[in-house]
Amino acid sequence: MTRTLPQPAREAIEIVTVLQALADPVRLEIVRELAQETEPRSCALEEYDLDITAATLSHHWRVLREAGLTTTTVEGRRRWIVLRRDDLQARFPGLLDAVLA
Amino acid sequence: MTRTLPQPAREAIEIVTVLQALADPVRLEIVRELAQETEPRSCALEEYDLDITAATLSHHWRVLREAGLTTTTVEGRRRWIVLRRDDLQARFPGLLDAVLA
Repeated sequence: MTRTLPQPAREAIEIVTVLQALADPVRLEIVRELAQETEPRSCALEEYDLDITAATLSHHWRVLREAGLTTTTVEGRRRWIVLRRDDLQARFPGLLDAVLA
Repeated sequence: MTRTLPQPAREAIEIVTVLQALADPVRLEIVRELAQETEPRSCALEEYDLDITAATLSHHWRVLREAGLTTTTVEGRRRWIVLRRDDLQARFPGLLDAVLA
């Protein structure tokens, strides 16, 4: 059984909150990696080349999800993350491309 | 006599710093207003419809300037602010348009 963690609806995604979520070097790097994926990616620390703790990564996942940048799906003990590319493009056309260029 | 306050060169403008500067509702509003101007604008508080103190506005001007978003020119006791539109467009094409849309 899978469930999706709470996240803002597309129309509730706010530009200031999105910018705050992106305005961190680690989160920007995470978003950059997610942008290269087409499928949900594991949220496990070992999947990423980041010099941070699991607790810190977990915090970053929450910030990204609550800002509306990502969707987190829980499947048993695993969590999967995917960038909300369509929602972001609909809400702020060109923003993600400009930030990640 | 006029002088320009220190600011990063175009190639030294960093995306994370720009995002941090923009990730504040007041600064975003200021940048939105500056984006509508073609000439430098006074930095005086009374020029803006903002419910903040002069000291806070002064802080925001510094953050924007140090991030590379604006140029501040000092002319006697007056200061003028202009958005570095060309530098930003060269460095991060489409970013400003996407953020301010």
